[in-house]
Amino acid sequence: MEQLNVGILGWGTVGCGVIEILQSHREEIKKRLGRELVLKKVADIDLERPRPVSLPREILTRDAKAVIEDPDIDIVVELIGGIEPARSFIMKALERGKHVVTANKALLAHHGNELFDFARKHQRIIAYEASVAGGIPFIKSLREGLAANNIDTVFGILNGTANFILTRMRESGLTFQEALKEAQSRGYAEADPRLDIEGIDTAHKLAITAAIAFNMSIVFDSIYVEGISGIDPLDIQFGEEFGYVLKLLAIARLGEGGVELRVHPTFIPSGHVLAGVRGAYNAVHVHGDAVGHVMLYGLGAGMMPTGSAVVADLMDLARDIAQGIHCRLPALGSYELNPIPVKPMDEVVTCYYFRFSAVDQPGVLSKISGILGRNNISISAVIQKGRHIGGAVPIVMVTHEAVESSVRRAIEEIDRLDVVRAKTQLIRIENLPVNYSEV
Amino acid sequence: MEQLNVGILGWGTVGCGVIEILQSHREEIKKRLGRELVLKKVADIDLERPRPVSLPREILTRDAKAVIEDPDIDIVVELIGGIEPARSFIMKALERGKHVVTANKALLAHHGNELFDFARKHQRIIAYEASVAGGIPFIKSLREGLAANNIDTVFGILNGTANFILTRMRESGLTFQEALKEAQSRGYAEADPRLDIEGIDTAHKLAITAAIAFNMSIVFDSIYVEGISGIDPLDIQFGEEFGYVLKLLAIARLGEGGVELRVHPTFIPSGHVLAGVRGAYNAVHVHGDAVGHVMLYGLGAGMMPTGSAVVADLMDLARDIAQGIHCRLPALGSYELNPIPVKPMDEVVTCYYFRFSAVDQPGVLSKISGILGRNNISISAVIQKGRHIGGAVPIVMVTHEAVESSVRRAIEEIDRLDVVRAKTQLIRIENLPVNYSEV
Repeated sequence: MEQLNVGILGWGTVGCGVIEILQSHREEIKKRLGRELVLKKVADIDLERPRPVSLPREILTRDAKAVIEDPDIDIVVELIGGIEPARSFIMKALERGKHVVTANKALLAHHGNELFDFARKHQRIIAYEASVAGGIPFIKSLREGLAANNIDTVFGILNGTANFILTRMRESGLTFQEALKEAQSRGYAEADPRLDIEGIDTAHKLAITAAIAFNMSIVFDSIYVEGISGIDPLDIQFGEEFGYVLKLLAIARLGEGGVELRVHPTFIPSGHVLAGVRGAYNAVHVHGDAVGHVMLYGLGAGMMPTGSAVVADLMDLARDIAQGIHCRLPALGSYELNPIPVKPMDEVVTCYYFRFSAVDQPGVLSKISGILGRNNISISAVIQKGRHIGGAVPIVMVTHEAVESSVRRAIEEIDRLDVVRAKTQLIRIENLPVNYSEV
Repeated sequence: MEQLNVGILGWGTVGCGVIEILQSHREEIKKRLGRELVLKKVADIDLERPRPVSLPREILTRDAKAVIEDPDIDIVVELIGGIEPARSFIMKALERGKHVVTANKALLAHHGNELFDFARKHQRIIAYEASVAGGIPFIKSLREGLAANNIDTVFGILNGTANFILTRMRESGLTFQEALKEAQSRGYAEADPRLDIEGIDTAHKLAITAAIAFNMSIVFDSIYVEGISGIDPLDIQFGEEFGYVLKLLAIARLGEGGVELRVHPTFIPSGHVLAGVRGAYNAVHVHGDAVGHVMLYGLGAGMMPTGSAVVADLMDLARDIAQGIHCRLPALGSYELNPIPVKPMDEVVTCYYFRFSAVDQPGVLSKISGILGRNNISISAVIQKGRHIGGAVPIVMVTHEAVESSVRRAIEEIDRLDVVRAKTQLIRIENLPVNYSEV
C-alpha cells in the first residue's frame, strides 16, 4: 500500500484540527482511501506555544521551505491565512509539483484567478473546500453535486461571528458592542474583528461561491459590502414587528444585466429556514433550475469543522493522485468561464426598511413620503412608535421594490430636512418565499 | 473533443428529467466537462404515451438489449425501478464494460451488496446519487464531503409523499385518508402508495445511507419499519401540546451494541430544523465527530430534482472515464466494510408518547401508571382531555427514556385492562437538541 505524504504550513487552530483528524482517524482514512495519509512535516514560526495536539519534534520546522521543498511531500496544506507569504508559498509548492489544499478565502478572493491558472499550468490542483462554509461540504455540492444545474441565486449566512452577534442582539437585546464583547470572550471573534463584522470575510466567501455557481472569474472588488457594526438593536426589534429577522447575508443573483453580488445586513422573513440559523452556524441556500431549492447547514468555522473540510480535500486529492490524475475538475467547475458583468449596486432593485428620526409634529410624514414618492419609492407599511412632542421619534417604514440609486437620492434629501434629526437607518429586505413547498 | 455516449433504460418521469437536462444544458455540460454527453439511445416498452420531452425517433427502442449491447454506449442509466428486470439489465451492462447510473433505491437496498461487488469485479462503477434524497447532493456529501468524519447519527426525512401527508394533517387537521387522497390528486402519491406511506421507501434509503455513513454492508431486512397509515390527527394535535411535530423519520444511530436502524413516525421538538421541513421536501441531518451537525435540505423526488442528481452522476462518471479511471471511490465509501450488528428493536432505548383510550373513572390512571412503573417506564407528563363519565377518554402520556421491549410488554398488559377500550397509540419521541449552537 502506497502512502501519501502531507506537509502543513501553519500550526494554528485549523492546523490542529487537521492534525487531530489525521492522528485519530488514521485507520478509517486508510480504509476509505486504500492508502495512508502520512503527516510528514509541519511548519510554523512559533513551535513553543501550547496547543491542543502534540507532534513528534522531528516533523516540526520553523522553515516553510523545508515543507515546500521536501521531495517526499505530495500535498502541501496552506493554513497560514492572509495574502503573503501564503501566496508565494502556494506558488512555490505548485512549481515543485505539489498539490495544494487551502482554507484561505482572503487569498482566493484576491488572487484566486491567477493562482488557479498557475496551478493548471503546472498540472496541479488547489483544493479549497474549507475556504467557504467551513465543515459544510458546500464547494463539492455546488461544483459537483449541482453541476447539472444552471444556478441563479445563492443566499448565504457565511460568517459565524456576525451571526452569533446578531443572534445575541435579537434574542437578548444586547447592543452590538455588548454582543461583540461576548463573542470575543467566547472565542467566536478575533481581537481585531473587522474582517468578520464589516462583512469582508463574507464577501471573500461570496466571491468564491459566485465564481463556482455561475462559472465566472472571481471578482472581489465589485462586491458591495456593508457590515453589521452600525446595527442598533432597535432595528432588529422593529424588523421583528414586520415579521423579519436580521441576518448578514451574502447574496448572489443572476439576472438580466449581470449578477448582483452584495453582502449587507438583510431582513428576511422569520419563517424562512435561513432565519432559524442561530449562533455560530452557517447556511447556504442555492436555487438551481433543475434541483429547485437546496439548503446546506452546519458549522462554518472552528478547529474540527474546518479540519473536516481540509481532510476531505486531502482524501479527494489522494484519490486523484492514486489514479495518476492531474486535474479531474476545473478549479471553478468549468473549462470556460462566462464573462458576466457585476450589476452596479445603484441598479439593484429590492425592498427597504427605513428608520427615520423625525421631529414629532404634524406634516412630517407627509414631507418624507412626498420625497419617497417623487423618487418612485412606494411604501408598504409604516409604524410610528411613541410620542415625544417637539422631540425626535422613530418612524419606521417598509417599502415595495425600489431602485437603490433612487433610494439613496431620497434618503439624502430626507436627511437634509430640518425635521429629521439623525441619519436615517436603511436596511435592505429580501422577501424570500417562506416555504418553497406548494403546501 | 471526445464525447461520451449515454443510454437510458426507462423513459418515465425521471427519464424525462434527465433527457430535458441533457437537451437544454448541453452547452453548459460541455463547458463543465470539457466533452459532450450525448444521448445515444432510450429504451422503454411504451414509446407512444405522451411525455413532456420529445426525442428523435431513431434513438428510441423497445428493446433494452439495444441499449445494453450497443458498443458505442459508455454509460447506461437504469430508471426502470423495481428489482427485475432492472437488476439483470444492470449486471449485463456492467459485463459489457458499461458504467451504470441508477436511481433505484429498492434494488440497491435488496441487492446493492452483490451489485457493487459485481461492478468492482468488472472494474466498473454503479453511481447512485439519485437513490437517496433526490436532488440533494447527499450521497456525495456523505461519502466524500464528510469522509474525514466518524459519523454516529443520521436522521432523515426521506419520503416527500409521507411528509406531505403529515404536513397536511398537521396544518389543516385532515385525516390520513383525506391527506393521502390530496397527495394522490396532486401527483405526490402513487395510485398504490404503500411503499411511501408504510415507510418501506424510507427504509430502502436508510439502508443505503447507513451503509455509507458507517462503512457497513447494506442491510435492509434488519430495519424496523412502521408507516404513517395508522396516524390519527388527534395524536398530531396532542403532540403539539407537548411541543412536538410528527415526522416519518429514518434513524441510524451507532452506539454500543451496534447500530439502530429504524423508520417510524417520530415526534421531534417543534424548534428543531427538521420540524420545519414541510410538504414534499426532504432533509437529512448528520452528526460527525469532526464536523458536528450538518443538515441538507431540498426536494427528494420529482422529474427535475431527481434528473439533477442523475446528470451529476453522469458528469462525475464522464470525468472519471475521461481520465481512464475505473474506480476512484469504493461504492460504499470504504475498501473495508465494518461488521456492525444491527441492534434489535427490542433493545432500543427512547422516549415514548402514549394515548390510552380509558374509561373515565377514578383509579384508571393509577392502574396504568402502576403497570408502567413495574416495567421501569417513568412518566414525564400526562394530559387528560375532556370528561366523559363512564365512557372512554384519551389519556396522553410522555415518558422518559425506556426500553422498547419493556414498553411493548407494558402496553400489552394495559390494553388487556377492562377499563381500556381501544388499542393504545404509541409514538416514539426523539428529543433532538433544538439548537446545536451554544447561544
